[in-house]
Amino acid sequence: MTSTAPTMSGLDTPLTPLRFLDRAAEVHPEKQAVIDGDRQLTYGEFAAAATRLAHALRASGIEAGDRVAYLATNSLEMLVAHFGVPLAGGVLVAINTRLAAAEVQYICDHSGAKLLVGEASLLAPLADVSFQTVGEIVETPTLDGQFVGPHLPYSALVDRGNDSPLSWDVADENAIISINYTSGTTGKPKGVMYTHRGAYLSSLGNAVTQGFSAETRYLWTLPMFHCNGWCGPWSVTSTAGTHVCLRAVRGPDMWQLIDAENVNQMSGAPTVLTTLATAGEAHAMTRPLTIATAGAPPSPTIIRAIGNLGITIVHVYGLTETYGPYSVCEAKPSWADLSADDRAVRMARQGVGMLTADRLRVVRPEAAEDGSLIDVASDGVEMGEIVMRGNVVMKGYFEDPERTAEAFAGGWFHSGDLGVMHPDGYVQLLDRAKDVVISGGENISTIEVEQAVLSHPAVLDVAVIGVPDEKWGERPKAYAVLRPGQEATEADVISHVKTQIASYKAPGAVEFVVDLPKTSTGKIRKNELRDEAWGNAKVRIQG
Amino acid sequence: MTSTAPTMSGLDTPLTPLRFLDRAAEVHPEKQAVIDGDRQLTYGEFAAAATRLAHALRASGIEAGDRVAYLATNSLEMLVAHFGVPLAGGVLVAINTRLAAAEVQYICDHSGAKLLVGEASLLAPLADVSFQTVGEIVETPTLDGQFVGPHLPYSALVDRGNDSPLSWDVADENAIISINYTSGTTGKPKGVMYTHRGAYLSSLGNAVTQGFSAETRYLWTLPMFHCNGWCGPWSVTSTAGTHVCLRAVRGPDMWQLIDAENVNQMSGAPTVLTTLATAGEAHAMTRPLTIATAGAPPSPTIIRAIGNLGITIVHVYGLTETYGPYSVCEAKPSWADLSADDRAVRMARQGVGMLTADRLRVVRPEAAEDGSLIDVASDGVEMGEIVMRGNVVMKGYFEDPERTAEAFAGGWFHSGDLGVMHPDGYVQLLDRAKDVVISGGENISTIEVEQAVLSHPAVLDVAVIGVPDEKWGERPKAYAVLRPGQEATEADVISHVKTQIASYKAPGAVEFVVDLPKTSTGKIRKNELRDEAWGNAKVRIQG
Repeated sequence: MTSTAPTMSGLDTPLTPLRFLDRAAEVHPEKQAVIDGDRQLTYGEFAAAATRLAHALRASGIEAGDRVAYLATNSLEMLVAHFGVPLAGGVLVAINTRLAAAEVQYICDHSGAKLLVGEASLLAPLADVSFQTVGEIVETPTLDGQFVGPHLPYSALVDRGNDSPLSWDVADENAIISINYTSGTTGKPKGVMYTHRGAYLSSLGNAVTQGFSAETRYLWTLPMFHCNGWCGPWSVTSTAGTHVCLRAVRGPDMWQLIDAENVNQMSGAPTVLTTLATAGEAHAMTRPLTIATAGAPPSPTIIRAIGNLGITIVHVYGLTETYGPYSVCEAKPSWADLSADDRAVRMARQGVGMLTADRLRVVRPEAAEDGSLIDVASDGVEMGEIVMRGNVVMKGYFEDPERTAEAFAGGWFHSGDLGVMHPDGYVQLLDRAKDVVISGGENISTIEVEQAVLSHPAVLDVAVIGVPDEKWGERPKAYAVLRPGQEATEADVISHVKTQIASYKAPGAVEFVVDLPKTSTGKIRKNELRDEAWGNAKVRIQG
Repeated sequence: MTSTAPTMSGLDTPLTPLRFLDRAAEVHPEKQAVIDGDRQLTYGEFAAAATRLAHALRASGIEAGDRVAYLATNSLEMLVAHFGVPLAGGVLVAINTRLAAAEVQYICDHSGAKLLVGEASLLAPLADVSFQTVGEIVETPTLDGQFVGPHLPYSALVDRGNDSPLSWDVADENAIISINYTSGTTGKPKGVMYTHRGAYLSSLGNAVTQGFSAETRYLWTLPMFHCNGWCGPWSVTSTAGTHVCLRAVRGPDMWQLIDAENVNQMSGAPTVLTTLATAGEAHAMTRPLTIATAGAPPSPTIIRAIGNLGITIVHVYGLTETYGPYSVCEAKPSWADLSADDRAVRMARQGVGMLTADRLRVVRPEAAEDGSLIDVASDGVEMGEIVMRGNVVMKGYFEDPERTAEAFAGGWFHSGDLGVMHPDGYVQLLDRAKDVVISGGENISTIEVEQAVLSHPAVLDVAVIGVPDEKWGERPKAYAVLRPGQEATEADVISHVKTQIASYKAPGAVEFVVDLPKTSTGKIRKNELRDEAWGNAKVRIQG
């Protein structure tokens, strides 16, 4: 019987995170939803703003499936976009605000965005850019409500809309809700496609894992352009929690908002933890505060420092391709008996698949004859690649079937991250994806940096790796070989690179070498450079 | 683009609650999963028991889609069945243990169950039954581990299995996981079909609504044969909480387990609250305890009595057709300012759709010309029928397309319950489904009782309604017209009825009348009888 049993059509409601705002506005219309400086929205106003934006986008020519790009910090408008753009049937493309003009252009062109909405200060560097598909640029207000020009003011955009109700239902839960561009192991950013179903399930998983409720007051220390803020605009809304916007991660601002707005939840890379713990305003909490952290494993040192402030850490792990967190280092009851140091070492592991994810696997480089993947031994020693799959793994790379197929070899998404499986079933990350540096939570493709260094006329060959950095976790370092008879200083190379790509991607150091270690086939042995820079693999991550 | 974007096959993992036990056993193999008297299972053992049962069922001829019936109280075996039966590809039919032999037979025959597993004391009354499809009957052990015969011991059944791992994945999330038989407005029980997807989403909704976590210690005061225990075997497992079995709801036993096992969560009809509050062992809690209640609206009196014990009530509402709870009376922040009495009145409302449900609507009897349903005014006055839809509404009635189509007229499931929509969007139930009495959380079809009364040779005509009862909320009462020249006493009629249907369904009182109030078309005006018995509609429910 099963599938052939009598079924009523239309009974299964397609899953979509739009339902979360629909419900929050229905149940808690008067409840505080968004705080952005002096501007505030109740849930009723939040839903109304999303509805008005959706109408405005449709009136501006946005049709089902059209991409709408945003270049904005954590703001009221960015939260509204997470509901208003898909409510219009559109696809949200939230762009990293730290990218160079050429990179923003690439993302807008590649995604085929019809509209670009952004903050004036972030749009200014794009003055000379000729977009292929963006037909209109819209400027959001500054924190004090000003429009500095020269673009269409956001207020004029939303004036094209109206307040007539729109259905929050979607026809297809597997439709795309957003595309997030990520720097992977190759130079050009890849457009990671999220579906309504995946965003819904990831949001519920996060809500259970982080314990979101109507009492949640969530400080936006995580950029919303990173994996749609780990689906936070949707998951915090699922329980009608309160969003507290933060436009730049500075210690004093964080503490001021934590205290003034009774913040009890936030998320961020370990650098956020460091900023928090080392701020002059840092003080022990007298009420619960939980921070979900990912992007790099938090060191036992920072875990202890945060613990001393009375703050709880939830260590999660994932990638842009997994809607943000895929796994969580869920504490076992038996860990309560461990010393603080031993517990911190376990807490630094990447753990197990979250509730709405599938398992986390670590597999051997060589697949079986039938193409299936082979797990490494669960001995905490044999290294392999971490792979994931399921509802909270992306639908694919936008208009890139080749790299999509490559990423899903064997039916699982290949993270590129190397790790081990401990006997208790918990995964530990041992080595980064070979060609990505994670600096302050940002993915930097070493290949992209290498190409920028190589574009300097005096450089013949180069290898870029991540090296330890106290503040950022890692920073790119370049090993450059100069062309015979040419000269260049470290400063020359770095300033040249900054004309090519975002400043934060530029190497912190350039070391000139006579030649680079290579394999017999000519491939650079980056592991030799890394071993020299880091000592050994385990220290590399846990340091 | 949306649906036509490049998609990797097999990336979306079909939703199934089987994943919850898979994950709990992976993450917390040593954690206490089940307590049933002196017997205990860790999550590793729980998953192993389900795996072994699944193998045993397959070895016993159970194939994909086959029904397996259980007639058991809240026990370890019943919990294992919720995973082991679907793991074998089967469909669980958990039968109300209080039904008469003929009713059990009807359910087994109608569902086409191949196997019946039950407790010896519950199987004994079936000795003379000839089942149409049940090929084998299996007897579970008593609490002290004995098999009293004459059926196949459960231990012999599971000996047919083995421990080789089975995949917890399912091929189709819309496949049927269970069928729950319910007495609706007509005499014969209807088989309500649950899907893997619906059970998964309902479980997650309950986990968020009730705040389940790894620290949850859940006392099984709710029968697992009611809507699969509101999906509790799955949802408590989703966060690796601990199940504490309870075979019969008695005050002393509840308090003994609450104290000894540190119970912090339970569910049940308001009669369970009354039993708890009035037990001699009742005492104020010194740690959190939350009870989700439904089946009848808790009275402000019981809400206050439970509150005085330091116990939190979560008031939910639903039907067998909605996997148990569909809506929750989610407290609004503004209610904190109300008096205790005013707050209790609001808490007794049925509220709003849960996180994974759709909206709760109250609609007029007449649909629009296009067949769509028309909402009543949100004025707390206009009465209409409560309707629901979406992922946590059943797939349909098993092999009953006619009653399925009827129930889903206009695309929404018709609860048969009458209520009003308050201006704040919260629904309040005002009148029960016209032909159902809810007594101690059990649905009793008045039509079924009427047929039993009518089978007494002296009875000419009868109408059965629910009347207020201090202990059970409602009890059926019969208004009987005797045949001319015939005689019968109240006791005669009641004892006759008990030979026909389950004792708990028999009327508590029989009033002999000269004739019944009828409409011009001959339909009995039950509302007149009810008005006489209850006073007015609002008191009827909230009393």
